[in-house]
Amino acid sequence: MKVFYQGEPGCFSHIAAQKVFPNAEKKGVSSFEAVVKRVLSEKNSIGILPMENTLIGKISSNYDLLLKYSVNVVREIIIRVRFYLMTLPEVEPDKIKQVWSHPAALEQCKNYISKKGYEPVAIYDTAGGAKLLRERGTKNVAILADKSVAERYKLKIIDREIEDNDNNYTRFFVISNGKKRLKKGEKIKTSIVFGVKNVPGILFKCLSVFALRNINLCSIESRPIHGKPWEYLFFIDFEGDIKEERCKMAIEGLKEIVNFIKILGTYGSLEE
Amino acid sequence: MKVFYQGEPGCFSHIAAQKVFPNAEKKGVSSFEAVVKRVLSEKNSIGILPMENTLIGKISSNYDLLLKYSVNVVREIIIRVRFYLMTLPEVEPDKIKQVWSHPAALEQCKNYISKKGYEPVAIYDTAGGAKLLRERGTKNVAILADKSVAERYKLKIIDREIEDNDNNYTRFFVISNGKKRLKKGEKIKTSIVFGVKNVPGILFKCLSVFALRNINLCSIESRPIHGKPWEYLFFIDFEGDIKEERCKMAIEGLKEIVNFIKILGTYGSLEE
Repeated sequence: MKVFYQGEPGCFSHIAAQKVFPNAEKKGVSSFEAVVKRVLSEKNSIGILPMENTLIGKISSNYDLLLKYSVNVVREIIIRVRFYLMTLPEVEPDKIKQVWSHPAALEQCKNYISKKGYEPVAIYDTAGGAKLLRERGTKNVAILADKSVAERYKLKIIDREIEDNDNNYTRFFVISNGKKRLKKGEKIKTSIVFGVKNVPGILFKCLSVFALRNINLCSIESRPIHGKPWEYLFFIDFEGDIKEERCKMAIEGLKEIVNFIKILGTYGSLEE
Repeated sequence: MKVFYQGEPGCFSHIAAQKVFPNAEKKGVSSFEAVVKRVLSEKNSIGILPMENTLIGKISSNYDLLLKYSVNVVREIIIRVRFYLMTLPEVEPDKIKQVWSHPAALEQCKNYISKKGYEPVAIYDTAGGAKLLRERGTKNVAILADKSVAERYKLKIIDREIEDNDNNYTRFFVISNGKKRLKKGEKIKTSIVFGVKNVPGILFKCLSVFALRNINLCSIESRPIHGKPWEYLFFIDFEGDIKEERCKMAIEGLKEIVNFIKILGTYGSLEE
């Protein structure tokens, strides 16, 4: 089996892949959309997409990819994100002027960076920063990444767990061409997206199909559809298996109310 | 009056400021948190915060700032985002190798960039890219920004409106130390945030206070509170003035259900 993720080895998507599929071949690609396209075009492959981070919120464009393409969510992984500051081995910490990392990583460590007076420089990937640093040999630069990156790229760790908030988690979806769930017996969740006309009470009606059956919601987000100012998309995750009778009935009820609905997947959740 | 925004003159926050306060003094600062802090510390000042973009979704960390600090939302502005590709005047278009812009701008033009075979390079601000390009005099680089940036930094426009989707809007909040709304007679909205224990049906109960009064919701987002795995925050925008009787009653009803609630503001909406 082949696992696609966006980024360089050592980035957090790669770490999530490592956690669930320690023995599978892993391949970094250049964008989230490329992850989805490779999963669709290559047999026996799966993909890893970050969906939400505690500090920066939902990654809505990845929800949009799930709406656009015919892939299924088959697993959820929640990992603790810890940032380490590292440089080339010969660099003295007091010589650091810039910090390179992914914009989301810089955002998550911004208090630390501003206290130290470093200049934050956004690049495409946390581990990609390490690769770039090695290639260029820049002396007055530190990067922010997972600690495994230090060993992989032979860098020196200067400071550890420097994120502003120590409750920093990222939630990933494992996506697949098929519907086969990857493990049984865990807490099962289902993700759906549906579209409605925006009239008063419509969301209340939609949620009634879950509330009446004591189905617990885990996440909800509205997205306006621009160009269609009175239509909205809702992305909802709930606890339960789409094959359970009460979940089936809830979806049937929802179909009576909404303009369209797509089941993104039913999957087990793995929390670190 | 002084208007604070994040970025350089010509960035989209600056354009939003220009639209609502053409004659006020405007000042760019380095972060969204700095915008909020300046609004709190300087008399007679207001701030501009981007809250949501059609293509990339909600900017959740700015909702978090509204939760953390005592500022009020006094106005909403929705502007159409159009990206222009520009270089130093002497550069031939076929010499372009890199495109510099804010990660969100690169994301919104990624099909175009990848078709042209350019290397995307993330920097902190769309208009800031123009400033950097001028300072460094780099020849094989184009930047992505609003068209007004070309004139401001004396750059040559190479291509226009290159965003992947032509329904690209960004929604900004105007924030203030006081509660005074900026204009009357427009469509009025109210933004709130509340926290609840995550038990089945809780959101349904919360939304009932709006549905029973025919109050229309415009936006909803759930945010997990990590470290407190069974508590959630909800950010909700609805149509109506907090001083209207039905809205007052809805909030009173909500207080019976939730753990805490904060009114972020009642404001008029201005759509381009």
